[in-house]
Amino acid sequence: MRSGPAAVLLPPALFSRASSTSSVLEVARSAREAARKLAALPLEDRNDALNRVASALENAKTEIETANKSDCEIAAKPESNVAPPLQARLKFGGSKFRDTIQGVRDLMKLEDPIGRIQLHRELDQGLVLKRKTVPLGVLGIIFEARPDAAVQIASLGIKSGNGVLLKCGREAVGSCRAIVSAIKDGLKTSKASPDVVALLTTREETAEMMKMKEYVDLIIPRGSNSFVQYVMQNTDIPVLGHADGICHIFVDKAAEIQKAVEIATDSKIQYPSACNAVETILVHEAVAKQFLEAFGSRAEKEGIEIRGCQGTLKHVKGAEAVEADWSTEYGDKIVSVKIVPSMESAMQHINTYGSRHTDCIITEDASAAAVFQSQVDAAGVYWNCSTRFADGFRYGFGAEVGISTSMMPPRGPVGLEGLVTYRYIMTGNGHVVKSYTGDGAKPFTHKNLPLQ
Amino acid sequence: MRSGPAAVLLPPALFSRASSTSSVLEVARSAREAARKLAALPLEDRNDALNRVASALENAKTEIETANKSDCEIAAKPESNVAPPLQARLKFGGSKFRDTIQGVRDLMKLEDPIGRIQLHRELDQGLVLKRKTVPLGVLGIIFEARPDAAVQIASLGIKSGNGVLLKCGREAVGSCRAIVSAIKDGLKTSKASPDVVALLTTREETAEMMKMKEYVDLIIPRGSNSFVQYVMQNTDIPVLGHADGICHIFVDKAAEIQKAVEIATDSKIQYPSACNAVETILVHEAVAKQFLEAFGSRAEKEGIEIRGCQGTLKHVKGAEAVEADWSTEYGDKIVSVKIVPSMESAMQHINTYGSRHTDCIITEDASAAAVFQSQVDAAGVYWNCSTRFADGFRYGFGAEVGISTSMMPPRGPVGLEGLVTYRYIMTGNGHVVKSYTGDGAKPFTHKNLPLQ
Repeated sequence: MRSGPAAVLLPPALFSRASSTSSVLEVARSAREAARKLAALPLEDRNDALNRVASALENAKTEIETANKSDCEIAAKPESNVAPPLQARLKFGGSKFRDTIQGVRDLMKLEDPIGRIQLHRELDQGLVLKRKTVPLGVLGIIFEARPDAAVQIASLGIKSGNGVLLKCGREAVGSCRAIVSAIKDGLKTSKASPDVVALLTTREETAEMMKMKEYVDLIIPRGSNSFVQYVMQNTDIPVLGHADGICHIFVDKAAEIQKAVEIATDSKIQYPSACNAVETILVHEAVAKQFLEAFGSRAEKEGIEIRGCQGTLKHVKGAEAVEADWSTEYGDKIVSVKIVPSMESAMQHINTYGSRHTDCIITEDASAAAVFQSQVDAAGVYWNCSTRFADGFRYGFGAEVGISTSMMPPRGPVGLEGLVTYRYIMTGNGHVVKSYTGDGAKPFTHKNLPLQ
Repeated sequence: MRSGPAAVLLPPALFSRASSTSSVLEVARSAREAARKLAALPLEDRNDALNRVASALENAKTEIETANKSDCEIAAKPESNVAPPLQARLKFGGSKFRDTIQGVRDLMKLEDPIGRIQLHRELDQGLVLKRKTVPLGVLGIIFEARPDAAVQIASLGIKSGNGVLLKCGREAVGSCRAIVSAIKDGLKTSKASPDVVALLTTREETAEMMKMKEYVDLIIPRGSNSFVQYVMQNTDIPVLGHADGICHIFVDKAAEIQKAVEIATDSKIQYPSACNAVETILVHEAVAKQFLEAFGSRAEKEGIEIRGCQGTLKHVKGAEAVEADWSTEYGDKIVSVKIVPSMESAMQHINTYGSRHTDCIITEDASAAAVFQSQVDAAGVYWNCSTRFADGFRYGFGAEVGISTSMMPPRGPVGLEGLVTYRYIMTGNGHVVKSYTGDGAKPFTHKNLPLQ
């Protein structure tokens, strides 16, 4: 069973159940039912399920790699018109496969995000309130053509007690079918139901899912800003938006120049198409010449293209920036640069053009950093480090399902902890509200008790 | 200045600035700017502002009561067509006035919801991540004709560092103008700007506000389900929904009957139009006769009308319930009653017809209660106490801006704590991501540090 092509190993019937409205509904309903049971499993059973999923993926390595090879070959054809960076993300094998499986096992070590008591309060004698974290229910995640993401997201769902409906980019359908099949195989031997994870493969199914408010609790679209906007405007289900990443670095007048050059370079070229890559560098006029000369020669060496304001172009080679540059996520080795007269002016620029993702100040002046970090309205406000650290894995969240740039929580990189909600659990012994109102009303004690 | 009618004391010009699109925009922009400064004030300054607001309201008691008297007189006219319960809520004077002001002062005693460190983690030596609570920004709150709500909401906003745009029900416009004028007077003598609080008075202004995604961060509509739905469908701004309250009481087979009767009665008549009042009582068939005979005679005495299933009507007087009754929020002294064969069946009914607000089990069987409280998917799951406890004040949150029935947090009664978000604050010293990737990658330490 380990040799033939994936198409033979995975009969289409296995997935065709999700091919019409009623089938998507059935898949979502089964996922909700399965998720309810998953939520009731103790941590050790959810961790055991993860372990079995990891082993099942290892056992299906050949099938998965074969399916992936086929996906990659199709994507590489000129007529498929798939950009090289996307082709690179599509590849799934070797160390990437190994690291991804390791990621599943690492997740087992993380604390349980559900069942945490966030509040424990006596309202009156014998009347006790607790606030306890519980899973959200069923997550609908629409992600790019990245097979490793299917594994990560499914694992985060299992650990956090949520069902997951996965919809991958069309280039990765073969790989994701093989992966989800293996995950289900792993779950079959565990206490969790294989229905907890399901794969949708067509746009029509995504559109159906977006209508199922009763069965889907959160939609997480990953992709272009326009796609996220489209999803937000076409569903009543809450959306966790992985929107534009217009990240800034402000090089303050008290910046150490070499540090600024290193951080700016890493923030741009370490992974130019990532949403946490820097797009605009704002430079205090007092250090403009010094920084720009150093950064300019580094940029030339690294192949970074500069779109600068007029002042900038006195010190470095590049094209003149136009208004649109300040709100463009290049996704490439291009950076816009602007000289500003003050930190106030830099913050003004960021609050105008930024996308509330991640913004950074480079300075040796701690009080300037404190002002910047308290007044810039982004999910991440950094001081003297690369914007590329904005990532669930780097934060220690056990990978991430997405990055939210909304003001409401969950905000920033969303991992395990962001996939839960809470419930107020109250216990009394015949307590009625009448006793606490009107003349002779009893007072509430509102005494906080230890969090258990 | 304490005698004449409110219309004379409050020149229209004071509020007319919000009478066109550009003026609402200006008000929202000023609120955002003022809120940014408010957010930076230490707790003692925000508490001092609350104290000054309380005093200013006391000083303006005559003006406010005069304006309220006038509102009430207009509402009482038959041609105004204002229902008696609404007229009762509109009244604002005497002990209600005193209690409301006391509520503002009580808020001063509550812990600061902003500036809390929720996570403190070393990612590597010298690279430290903190997650800190910060205000949301500007809240747009559309509430019913209740003058006391204007005071409560504005106070919650000030304490939590948020700007608030208040839009009250049209019957309370005179009272709310006098109240907001006094609040602004109080703020003028404090370190907070009076622009933190603003009053909108027309539907057109509400419609404008719903378009101002750049300046308004959260909209909280309080009112009918259809109104909340309307708001949700007509804005891109996140909405905290105070939707239908279809609350249930399940009288288990192990219920103590007298306790069940007292709790059911309190849950219904203590304030029948509240969203946390019970609408449906589900009774285990094993105790149906016993409970229904006792509850039936109590209901008759209290003037509670019963809409029962056929089995129910064998034991109590009432009309036969139709399908629509199970999803109706009566807002009146009416309750639907259904006999169920098991707790499983009761939970099924609740998960089908409930609105995820507050549901309660009456039982002496702790293990039945545990199952109910872990498997019913509501913001509040209660055991042996009145559903009417679902309220921010009773939970010790310092009043509430609304109750959310969504799955995503903030959920349930939303007070101070629900009006904040968080920001990831990272401090490094030249750290770049390149060091942690590829061959020879440094590992992250991910060491949790004490929460400061």
